[in-house]
Amino acid sequence: MSQNCHMGPFLMQDTNFGVLTGNNVETRFFKAGSIIFHQGDAANEMFVIRSGQVRIQLGNRTLAELSADAIFGEMALIDNEPRSATAIAVTDVELVPVSEKQFLFMVGQTPYFALKVMRVLAQRLRATSKTFG
Amino acid sequence: MSQNCHMGPFLMQDTNFGVLTGNNVETRFFKAGSIIFHQGDAANEMFVIRSGQVRIQLGNRTLAELSADAIFGEMALIDNEPRSATAIAVTDVELVPVSEKQFLFMVGQTPYFALKVMRVLAQRLRATSKTFG
Repeated sequence: MSQNCHMGPFLMQDTNFGVLTGNNVETRFFKAGSIIFHQGDAANEMFVIRSGQVRIQLGNRTLAELSADAIFGEMALIDNEPRSATAIAVTDVELVPVSEKQFLFMVGQTPYFALKVMRVLAQRLRATSKTFG
Repeated sequence: MSQNCHMGPFLMQDTNFGVLTGNNVETRFFKAGSIIFHQGDAANEMFVIRSGQVRIQLGNRTLAELSADAIFGEMALIDNEPRSATAIAVTDVELVPVSEKQFLFMVGQTPYFALKVMRVLAQRLRATSKTFG
């Protein structure tokens, strides 16, 4: 995250979190078709997708289809509420979990990380409004 | 913003931005019933409500009713897209505008501010999902 303390790239619309999926991190695997978490589950981590495709669903509506270097599960870290949607592995998936402690550290150390997370939330909000509008 | 650099109050669910509405700031007034901005407008600032009530609408659905110390209009600053919804003054309203430059400065200087903005976005996302779900 060394280059992230300047604000220049703010307008780049960058929501690539690949910097968090380096080689020396714990990863977690999910088989195609398996549930990563259910709406309503208690939660204390978010995920970066290292490989594979993840679908975010609310009831039977798809809110997002995400691939490598995208994050999901960040909502529950931010507001400490249960999972707001269900996440399903569309293909075999490898994930990097990010704990609340790591998340808060990154927000504190790298404003650019905070902006990227805000941008993801803003995109989801616009997409959700469109899906249901 | 002097006390905002520690992360302790993270779990307080605090979305009060009253610290930004001090006495020496520019304010803007809107009469009850007037439109503050329309969905689709270009945008380069967000607002903190100093007094009064603001309704956020998408088409004819109310997404939020906000009062003193709440923020709105932050979406367009974050993703540089047009206004995602319409904001209407329900009562006479006094607002403190926050420019993109001020916003980026606060995100960079005070991680707690960034977390609060994320929390607002997360709340709106949950509310939008409920409104349309």
